[in-house]
Amino acid sequence: MTGYRVAIAGATGVVGRTIMEVLAERRFPVSELRLLATERSAGQKLPFAGRKIEVRIAAPDDFEGVDLAFFAVGTEASRVLVPMAIAKGAVAIDKSNAFRMAAGVPLVVPEVNSHALAGHSGIIASPNCTTIQTVMALKPLLDIAGLDWVHVCSYQAVSGSGREGMDELQAQRQAMAAGEPPRAKLYPCPIADNVIPHIDSFGPDGYTGEERKMLTETRKILDLPDLPVAATCVRVPVMVAHATAVMVKTKEPISAPDARRAIGAFPGVVLMDEPGTFIDPLDAAGRDEVLVGRVREAPGMPNTLEMDRRR
Amino acid sequence: MTGYRVAIAGATGVVGRTIMEVLAERRFPVSELRLLATERSAGQKLPFAGRKIEVRIAAPDDFEGVDLAFFAVGTEASRVLVPMAIAKGAVAIDKSNAFRMAAGVPLVVPEVNSHALAGHSGIIASPNCTTIQTVMALKPLLDIAGLDWVHVCSYQAVSGSGREGMDELQAQRQAMAAGEPPRAKLYPCPIADNVIPHIDSFGPDGYTGEERKMLTETRKILDLPDLPVAATCVRVPVMVAHATAVMVKTKEPISAPDARRAIGAFPGVVLMDEPGTFIDPLDAAGRDEVLVGRVREAPGMPNTLEMDRRR
Repeated sequence: MTGYRVAIAGATGVVGRTIMEVLAERRFPVSELRLLATERSAGQKLPFAGRKIEVRIAAPDDFEGVDLAFFAVGTEASRVLVPMAIAKGAVAIDKSNAFRMAAGVPLVVPEVNSHALAGHSGIIASPNCTTIQTVMALKPLLDIAGLDWVHVCSYQAVSGSGREGMDELQAQRQAMAAGEPPRAKLYPCPIADNVIPHIDSFGPDGYTGEERKMLTETRKILDLPDLPVAATCVRVPVMVAHATAVMVKTKEPISAPDARRAIGAFPGVVLMDEPGTFIDPLDAAGRDEVLVGRVREAPGMPNTLEMDRRR
Repeated sequence: MTGYRVAIAGATGVVGRTIMEVLAERRFPVSELRLLATERSAGQKLPFAGRKIEVRIAAPDDFEGVDLAFFAVGTEASRVLVPMAIAKGAVAIDKSNAFRMAAGVPLVVPEVNSHALAGHSGIIASPNCTTIQTVMALKPLLDIAGLDWVHVCSYQAVSGSGREGMDELQAQRQAMAAGEPPRAKLYPCPIADNVIPHIDSFGPDGYTGEERKMLTETRKILDLPDLPVAATCVRVPVMVAHATAVMVKTKEPISAPDARRAIGAFPGVVLMDEPGTFIDPLDAAGRDEVLVGRVREAPGMPNTLEMDRRR
């Protein structure tokens, strides 16, 4: 049977299910699909290509003969499972933070640096959600004008915390509708009716892990090890779709119209920047592309642009 | 009878009621209080100093003999009512956008530029909500290190649109809880479960009116007519308390600890910046002070600080 033997660890989560959908949508040649999860979700049966596939507890033998193994699990689980997979000869594609900054591990946004895949040694890492949408719109500006520095403020949905985050927001909304106080378990305080500038843990410099990832991952993906990238990452009470506000100073002057043209021509990016419009969430729902809007020249700041992004 | 004769136009709105509360809390010497509103709210009776005061439709004679008239109404209404008040010899304190940038009208944040009051000619304007919290933390940095440029991203509550905004978010939350689609009237699209980078109308440069106010008002209040101030202003699904993420480049080097000391010593500002903490909304609720946290040095960017603010 032609095709690839594929495993998905974390198959029952939001990302795991999306991987299955994308494999089906894009008619990826799958000869066999193995679905893996923790004890909690094992035994479920998920549909794929007209069959029902039972979810198993991940164990080393599950990666025997696997060509491609996707890991849509947390950082701790990836640290345990990814080495199992590569020991069996699989190529691991990991969405967690476990291996992103490791030497020899390509950190890839296909439209931006697919060339980095050439050097992989078994693990390919996928960047953090907000990093992806940021580098997708920075790359076309880098190519034509160079980058001097970047400032990102994020408006991140609870879907970034997986199903647990979505369940927590939903439960807090229901509590508030019933006149009860919202209770926080996953987040450090209620997220319903609130914004929380605390994603991942705080470092000694005052930046959170999420903000630090924006710096280190952007530098690695764009191959600019000294690029200054400052970020404020904020969780907002929105179920899905992250947004970022980005300010960028380029090395060479570039007008807003020229920036719009370059960004609009970049694969995977959709420019939604008609005068007087902004990105409506209905435009973003269910799309793979990164939407970029409101590209504008910062008043009084040479070579500096602002823009909105949403995915 | 000693004290001031005070009028409040827009008395039944969120801001109008808060003005009454603050007058009472601070035992402001009021000899007579006149409450004014539109036809819709006239006839209501509001309690003040142990009495019930009937709300009247604002007319020129209502300002006869008034010392201080507060205007907590929209821009269009202020354009009509404020001239009535000053024609009768009252000093008008206006929260709207109508006169903020007019020559001869002081735009005042008391802790920052109360000296500007000296030049008033009948109208004193109050800045936009997000501008106030921004200049309150910029002023101490300006005083010790100068300002090169400022970048602000906001997370603005629907209370900024007054009761209408709060009612709309509440109605949309109830619709969603009942499984119905949220309907937008005031905002261009639903605000529940969404973020909207569209506050006030778009200008030809791609910036919204709200973002433009951040530029022009900050320049006027700080008396720095050329200061570059770039902003992305975003409405978030939060009932009250605005937050901003601010990046500032100073002219002279300043360390995060020195910045914290200067900000913490500034009147009206409370520094909440213990390592590993962030500003909890419970800390902000019902307080007059501006809370500042997470003052940090931007990685790789000389003289550049980031911080979170909330009010």
